[in-house]
Amino acid sequence: MTPTNRKRARTATALLAASLGLHSLAGADEGMWTFDNLPAAQLKQRYDFTATPRWLERARLASVRFNDGGSGAFVSADGLVLTNHHVALGQLQKISSAKRDYVKNGFFARTRSQEVKCPDLELNQLVSYENVTARVLGAVDPKASDQKQNEQRKAEIARIEKESSDKTGLRCDVVELYQGGEYWLYRYKKYTDLRLVMAPEAQAAFYGGDPDNFTFPRFDLDFAFFRVYENGKPVHPKSYFRWSRAGAKEGELVFVSGNPGSTDRLKTVSQLEYERNYHLPDDLAILRHRRLALLAYSAKGTEEARRAKNLLFGIDNAIKAISGELAGLRDGTLMARKLKQEKAFRAQAAARADLRRYGDAWDKIAAVQDKLAARHKQLMFRNLFGSRLAGLATTIVRYVVEVKKPNDKRYKEFRDSALDSLNFRLFSPAPVYKDLEEAALADCLRQSLEELGPDDAHVRAALGGETPQEKAHELVSGTRLDQPAARKALITGGIKAVEASKDPLIVWARAIDPAYRKLRKWSEDEIESVETAEGRRLAKARFALYGKSLYPDATFTPRLSFGRVAGYEQGTTRIPYKTTFYGLYDRAASFDDRPPFDLPARVARERGDRALLATPLNFVTTNDIIGGNSGSPVFNRHLEYVGLIFDGDIQSLVGRYIYDDAQNRAVAVHSSAILAALRRIYHCDALARELTGR
Amino acid sequence: MTPTNRKRARTATALLAASLGLHSLAGADEGMWTFDNLPAAQLKQRYDFTATPRWLERARLASVRFNDGGSGAFVSADGLVLTNHHVALGQLQKISSAKRDYVKNGFFARTRSQEVKCPDLELNQLVSYENVTARVLGAVDPKASDQKQNEQRKAEIARIEKESSDKTGLRCDVVELYQGGEYWLYRYKKYTDLRLVMAPEAQAAFYGGDPDNFTFPRFDLDFAFFRVYENGKPVHPKSYFRWSRAGAKEGELVFVSGNPGSTDRLKTVSQLEYERNYHLPDDLAILRHRRLALLAYSAKGTEEARRAKNLLFGIDNAIKAISGELAGLRDGTLMARKLKQEKAFRAQAAARADLRRYGDAWDKIAAVQDKLAARHKQLMFRNLFGSRLAGLATTIVRYVVEVKKPNDKRYKEFRDSALDSLNFRLFSPAPVYKDLEEAALADCLRQSLEELGPDDAHVRAALGGETPQEKAHELVSGTRLDQPAARKALITGGIKAVEASKDPLIVWARAIDPAYRKLRKWSEDEIESVETAEGRRLAKARFALYGKSLYPDATFTPRLSFGRVAGYEQGTTRIPYKTTFYGLYDRAASFDDRPPFDLPARVARERGDRALLATPLNFVTTNDIIGGNSGSPVFNRHLEYVGLIFDGDIQSLVGRYIYDDAQNRAVAVHSSAILAALRRIYHCDALARELTGR
Repeated sequence: MTPTNRKRARTATALLAASLGLHSLAGADEGMWTFDNLPAAQLKQRYDFTATPRWLERARLASVRFNDGGSGAFVSADGLVLTNHHVALGQLQKISSAKRDYVKNGFFARTRSQEVKCPDLELNQLVSYENVTARVLGAVDPKASDQKQNEQRKAEIARIEKESSDKTGLRCDVVELYQGGEYWLYRYKKYTDLRLVMAPEAQAAFYGGDPDNFTFPRFDLDFAFFRVYENGKPVHPKSYFRWSRAGAKEGELVFVSGNPGSTDRLKTVSQLEYERNYHLPDDLAILRHRRLALLAYSAKGTEEARRAKNLLFGIDNAIKAISGELAGLRDGTLMARKLKQEKAFRAQAAARADLRRYGDAWDKIAAVQDKLAARHKQLMFRNLFGSRLAGLATTIVRYVVEVKKPNDKRYKEFRDSALDSLNFRLFSPAPVYKDLEEAALADCLRQSLEELGPDDAHVRAALGGETPQEKAHELVSGTRLDQPAARKALITGGIKAVEASKDPLIVWARAIDPAYRKLRKWSEDEIESVETAEGRRLAKARFALYGKSLYPDATFTPRLSFGRVAGYEQGTTRIPYKTTFYGLYDRAASFDDRPPFDLPARVARERGDRALLATPLNFVTTNDIIGGNSGSPVFNRHLEYVGLIFDGDIQSLVGRYIYDDAQNRAVAVHSSAILAALRRIYHCDALARELTGR
Repeated sequence: MTPTNRKRARTATALLAASLGLHSLAGADEGMWTFDNLPAAQLKQRYDFTATPRWLERARLASVRFNDGGSGAFVSADGLVLTNHHVALGQLQKISSAKRDYVKNGFFARTRSQEVKCPDLELNQLVSYENVTARVLGAVDPKASDQKQNEQRKAEIARIEKESSDKTGLRCDVVELYQGGEYWLYRYKKYTDLRLVMAPEAQAAFYGGDPDNFTFPRFDLDFAFFRVYENGKPVHPKSYFRWSRAGAKEGELVFVSGNPGSTDRLKTVSQLEYERNYHLPDDLAILRHRRLALLAYSAKGTEEARRAKNLLFGIDNAIKAISGELAGLRDGTLMARKLKQEKAFRAQAAARADLRRYGDAWDKIAAVQDKLAARHKQLMFRNLFGSRLAGLATTIVRYVVEVKKPNDKRYKEFRDSALDSLNFRLFSPAPVYKDLEEAALADCLRQSLEELGPDDAHVRAALGGETPQEKAHELVSGTRLDQPAARKALITGGIKAVEASKDPLIVWARAIDPAYRKLRKWSEDEIESVETAEGRRLAKARFALYGKSLYPDATFTPRLSFGRVAGYEQGTTRIPYKTTFYGLYDRAASFDDRPPFDLPARVARERGDRALLATPLNFVTTNDIIGGNSGSPVFNRHLEYVGLIFDGDIQSLVGRYIYDDAQNRAVAVHSSAILAALRRIYHCDALARELTGR
């Protein structure tokens, strides 16, 4: 399952980067392209297709970003949005309770009045964008230190965002692309009144569970419908995808529009080595530690299991994804290819008088990796992943301090342009389960202690001489931050209120803040500033050599990829381009209906429905996607909706570093499967009619 | 698909061998055990099962060997024998014609009078056996040269076989086991009146074709029924397997009785290196060369394609199997394990005063491999694989000479004990297609010329200055050996008739005979004699260290293996223990019914039959099998028939060298699938009743 865009814990460095040794793109369906820079010649030559500006605008406006970490699309004139069940899962869990478990049983609004408002879901639609590279770089003094330049660049970005959002009222983000080669201002329309319309049972959506995750052939109904409201009424979007009659066909050209989260294709070999030797192993250690703690919590009872489900799902998903990435980096083949590409790029740059001066950039970046390696444990094992309350507390403590600074001096996440969305999440009425919070926080503290030892500044402040279990219990049982009103009061009260607060979690968050700020400053000054500066130098060399025949690394911003519906060879046999419902019932019967291969009753009931059995269920395409693309529409050249991205196959995991169309496949729910499920399994006939007009 | 027991072309050396570095068998389902030496303690401990002598006898007598190269079992009181469709394929092809294509359309005898006699099928049933090691080794003078000892051993074996067959009228074979550690006299009852009862369409039996061969999950109806007659009446076997009501269940203990063809688990590392560097690559070169020639022939028309089908099937199957074996040997892991085992064995032998003297055996065997390497091209590329007429001619020419010698001086295949079966095949009325023969023979000659050059003794004699195409045309068009009567006349006429014959193919076979005899003598004297002698020394060391806690390498003689019905992990997902008919229809629909994933009309018609859909189709077990086990019964502890072996998965191919139960699986047709197919697809109700009594 394509992971939603889980932010990596490596502070700021993950978003920066380096350069690439380039391989030819000719003939491949590679690329997560920005809407302004589709490879027109390639599309024309491979598929005899030309994207007109009107076509591109319609595709862009029909696509949305889910700020929970996914993508989606408008599919009706009345604001219906289709995404993955696993993107909707967080909201489904937040509106569920012990008595009404929509995750387990599915959710079906048969009339508009039954549609349920989501507590803290925000959608973004990219309505306009412009290149602001000249302005950002113009504000930077090239003779200043790396650190100074970094500050100047960030300040100018903050100014651009603020100006634009003040003027338009839109969410305005300046996005760094091509490792600092370009900066673009993206203006998004925000939607915050989202209502749940329909979601199948989790077991139908995530059929086969963790074993079948990142696997094809596959048999998942991983879809969910929301409706977008404004002023209490469904919106009528300027653009939406029409439902295809036939759905995806073998060999046809298809597009995927969505928000790929992050790729590392342009990183230097030394950066990839850091990933391989430190970052990914540390990341896995955190995930596995937390997983065991949450499994122990879940084992206490069905209600505990229900509460932890979404978090555990995300952890399992990330473990499988990161394991695949790490296996790729540890496999000599991939690194050898990367090394060869880098050597070629260096040689080409060295051969040109005007580019020769960039030759030391690789070495400077490599030197930074050694610095990182020396502190990798601090960078990773001070994190509080898994505890929502701890995240809220530390955010509040930083929030009140940061917003007092000039806009351009703040941490990025507290800039004016980001505050609306942040407040929306901060004041979310979604339920907080204290027992779950305590288990997660205790585990965070326990792992920090194990990995960093009792003398680490963060550990000392976070434990204050107590055991992790004692501390977590004290903090969680005593806090009132589970109430949105308590959080609001602190934000409204500002620094004074936070400093006066006796809420144990706030007291604690204040205590650990200095160590956090110190480490972050070190990371920004010593790591980020160098990686950005040197990355930009490499970007210059790259532009000079290759122009804009390339796409930037993914940044959880709107991209378009193209490809074709196609099976592949695996081992010594063939994998078909699609599966059918026959296959779903085969897999269930083959495992004698044992979990995670059991069927929800509604699905099991239809196992003799001959028309349903032969219906396409999932299919694969060569489109270049990655986590964050979950919920992306798959559409054909006529902008018809033919499928719904929900995963990549296991061979796609190394796609974080390199794309190879032999076996790298995007996995999608076939549009015919969605329609057949609505009509023949869930009897949502009105919804089916809204999609098809029939 | 488990290959039938294709004899390897490496003259005599393939059956000899060497020694093993032993790994512990405790806890694994490893082993192709002889009926006299089941690992009782292991079975008791792992499965709480004890095989009584009566149980073993019933299992042995209910099992049969197909001399076409496979296995089978009695499944009714009226002599019904069940085996694989791909074991029956040769006979099916021989009774088919352009007008009645039983391969394509299936064969269905609805009454006994419709059952059709097979032209040259022989079954063997092992009725008794005894250990003759003392007698064989007693006849060998340990002070004589290796070559002399080899002759003495062979002579004694010939005497034992002749005495026993004169006395019992049975087929009597002395079998070398444990690399010469033991010799056993096996007495077989022969059945030669076999009649075809039922066979599905080849496309149902071999669904998924070459891509899905050696693959699981799998969806094949790879079965066929024969009936055994004697004196014009169905036999009533002393023992047969009762049909299980439920069929194979997950986790249960199951046995496989059959005739695994050959394994190389006891070979030394130097012998495996020869396999890897010469034998297997040469073998693949021959198969691929012949395949292209036969594809060109098949492309001429549907009748040509029909005629070549069985041969091409065998070639494709062997290419995939040998490629898997070669990949295994080329993968460092396997060789490293073998080397480690061998080192341990050598160290243990060296540590014991009484075994130390065997320490040079490995080096002597290694020296022989160098000799083999120097002549590997002659040994491999003089072969006539694929041409039935050339095989008949060379056999006749040798036959008349050999049978004039004393029994114990003959080539093994012409000893008295072997002549009945040989004659049965030699005089077979099965059709010979001259156009196909010419294509195959021309290709043999062409490859010999390419690989050995025009000055090779065999090539010079075989071509006589002509081109391969000219020569093949001249030989095949002029010969009368396609007539069984012509072959009989030559055998009856003996040396005189053969020497006087002007049949061009006989003249040609006489011309190439000297080179053949010279090479074979070299191989027996220089290679076989050393490998046997040194192999026996290693066998002594092995017996001294491990007793009979081990099983011998496979020799296409009756063996019993045990295991459990069990799925496995593959990549990052799970493979179930079985498939169902749902899965068959899914695979067909997933490929939009494109060959080789199309369905025969009779099968396609039932795609809505709900009772059929959920029926188990194929399943996997941990039983240790290999080519030659095709058609073997899978039965439970109550001697009930629960499945029919027809293949191993791709991970089983390295099983030739090493067994690992993590992923090595035997693949079988579920007994419920056979019954459901008979009743619901083919409407063979009488046959179904005969199996179940209901």
